[in-house]
Amino acid sequence: DNYFKIAVLPGDGIGPEIISESIKILDVIAEAFQYKFHFDYGLIGAEAIFKTGNPLPEETLKICKESDAVLFGAIGDPVFDNNPEAKVRPEQGLLRLRKELGLFANIRPLQTYSSLIEKSPLKKEIIEGADIQIFRELVSGIYFGEKFTDPEEAYAYDVCRYSREDILPIAHMAFQEAQKRNKKLTLIDKANVLDTSRLWRKTCQEIAAEYPDVQLDYMFVDNAAMQLILNPKQFDVILTENMFGDIISDEASVIGGSIGLLPSASIGENNALFEPIHGSYPQAKGKGIANPVASILSVAMMLDHLGLQSAAGKLKQSVEHAIENKYVTIDLNTKQYYSTSEVGSFIADYI
Amino acid sequence: DNYFKIAVLPGDGIGPEIISESIKILDVIAEAFQYKFHFDYGLIGAEAIFKTGNPLPEETLKICKESDAVLFGAIGDPVFDNNPEAKVRPEQGLLRLRKELGLFANIRPLQTYSSLIEKSPLKKEIIEGADIQIFRELVSGIYFGEKFTDPEEAYAYDVCRYSREDILPIAHMAFQEAQKRNKKLTLIDKANVLDTSRLWRKTCQEIAAEYPDVQLDYMFVDNAAMQLILNPKQFDVILTENMFGDIISDEASVIGGSIGLLPSASIGENNALFEPIHGSYPQAKGKGIANPVASILSVAMMLDHLGLQSAAGKLKQSVEHAIENKYVTIDLNTKQYYSTSEVGSFIADYI
Ligand SMILES: CC(C)[C@H](C(=O)O)[C@@H](O)C(=O)O
Ligand SMILES: CC(C)[C@H](C(=O)O)[C@@H](O)C(=O)O
Repeated sequence: DNYFKIAVLPGDGIGPEIISESIKILDVIAEAFQYKFHFDYGLIGAEAIFKTGNPLPEETLKICKESDAVLFGAIGDPVFDNNPEAKVRPEQGLLRLRKELGLFANIRPLQTYSSLIEKSPLKKEIIEGADIQIFRELVSGIYFGEKFTDPEEAYAYDVCRYSREDILPIAHMAFQEAQKRNKKLTLIDKANVLDTSRLWRKTCQEIAAEYPDVQLDYMFVDNAAMQLILNPKQFDVILTENMFGDIISDEASVIGGSIGLLPSASIGENNALFEPIHGSYPQAKGKGIANPVASILSVAMMLDHLGLQSAAGKLKQSVEHAIENKYVTIDLNTKQYYSTSEVGSFIADYI
Repeated sequence: DNYFKIAVLPGDGIGPEIISESIKILDVIAEAFQYKFHFDYGLIGAEAIFKTGNPLPEETLKICKESDAVLFGAIGDPVFDNNPEAKVRPEQGLLRLRKELGLFANIRPLQTYSSLIEKSPLKKEIIEGADIQIFRELVSGIYFGEKFTDPEEAYAYDVCRYSREDILPIAHMAFQEAQKRNKKLTLIDKANVLDTSRLWRKTCQEIAAEYPDVQLDYMFVDNAAMQLILNPKQFDVILTENMFGDIISDEASVIGGSIGLLPSASIGENNALFEPIHGSYPQAKGKGIANPVASILSVAMMLDHLGLQSAAGKLKQSVEHAIENKYVTIDLNTKQYYSTSEVGSFIADYI
């Protein structure tokens, strides 16, 4: 029916400010499209550590598990970044949430906006028209493998482990996305060195026959880090493991010139989480200068996921309208700019 | 004295062509400066597999161990890249050589040439003046940790392991380099997720007191992948582990716009190896179009390492003279260009 339970986790830094704008948008959409969104707020990250000692309180996990979708702000606080000895850290909350909800696929679209192309650090002719969808495996690999530090701190290790079962679901997802797009899938790995990478290649090769219309390519991660800058237009859908995905997707996110605009979706079998790619940006906290668009576009991804395509379409259109009319925050235009909430309201009003 | 034993490993693809130019240069330098270079040639990589079945024949290893320096061309052949099942691969030759010679530090300078700045994919104002020295740990980490693939291929793992002893020598080297430069050292890691990264931070922190004039910073690898593109000038000396160094140094190598110019040195306690950053570029093999400058600048790094600073200085000057006078290969100027051996001879004549 038209009733949806949304878990809302504002988190740290600018998280709460951008999430307010997303809620503003959802309220307007509820009215315009006759949906009902029920919001359950939860603590996570540094905020949760300060208040409960736990970066992911059980109450928050419960809210998320029972939700139709999780709307996530940002986490991270300089207090912890500058202290490598801290035993409890905001990031643990997010990592555990991903694992507990089984969010195996992190999906990040890289799109460029012609009115913002000059913000890119790359030359216009290189970046213009690039359109990439990145699928990053999110709940296995070296992030979640066994870890050990010898009590004397003489040595440490981290294990990167993958099973076929870890790889298959996201590989199928990426092939299916490629079918809907330009039919090109690039697996990024380090198969000339790593056993896990060779397992990724083998597993993708095995299922490739089910997607005969998709061209499957392989690229070593070091080469990919170069190719993304030299010629981003060669990519359509990218598939990669957790650690390489962390690096490559962040690299990809800046070449468009507008990391403040990029949303992401983390999808599992029974749960899904939507968050901006940018972090908690603590220096901007409370100043009303944060760009709410990445969070608002995460809402659009969420609506899509909930099957509310027409609302999602309308929302994306409204965001484009705001950007084209230069109704943007200071990161995109230092001469004429609007506050976080002005931009949110402008987009809401257009809906 | 003035006698040096140089092991020469031309390798695959364009390796032999660029190495010929480096030998041409060394012959001229020997004459001009009254040195004597003795060259011992060895097989490595695909070439060695085709001829002996072994990517690093014992004879080659012996030549290298007995040398004062190793001059390396390139390895890699599409025959192997396109076959993930191949059990013997060219890369194994290079990896084993690094390990056997104990080449723990891979050093890659990133410099820009003002006459070539427009070749960069980045906007001029972002890249101009960037000058970075990258120290990548080369004989430990996930490259050399335990590897396993279950016989049924249901799962695989790779272990990333570091000991304090692995980290200390390269960390000291990087601190010392920072002292000679702009006194800024950035350790790139993923300390919010990995135990090995936290060991890197701890170990660097411990010895930082010995270098009070150097400012030690930390940066997460995902952020570093962005910052290199957004603002490369913020970096002076970068220190990082093996896998992150592979990715980050390749990313860094293209932002200058001239990967064909970048040399690298791999240093161990008793041995040292010098090679261009670029690969074997098989498409260009035998066409006389390969840029010999990266290999020639590797010779300059080698001369520096052998204590022949004035010859190294003269050689670098000659290379700059060739570039400024547009005496370059087709990759740097498609309108007016010279062959591999013409560029080599031009540089040699100037010495
Ligand atoms: C906060 C951190 C643990 C996280 C990650 O590395 O996955 C972040 O960088 C991301 O990409 O979502
Ligand atoms: C050929 C390959 C094994 C090697 C590496 O990953 O170290 C190469 O990419 C390099 O950087 O020298």
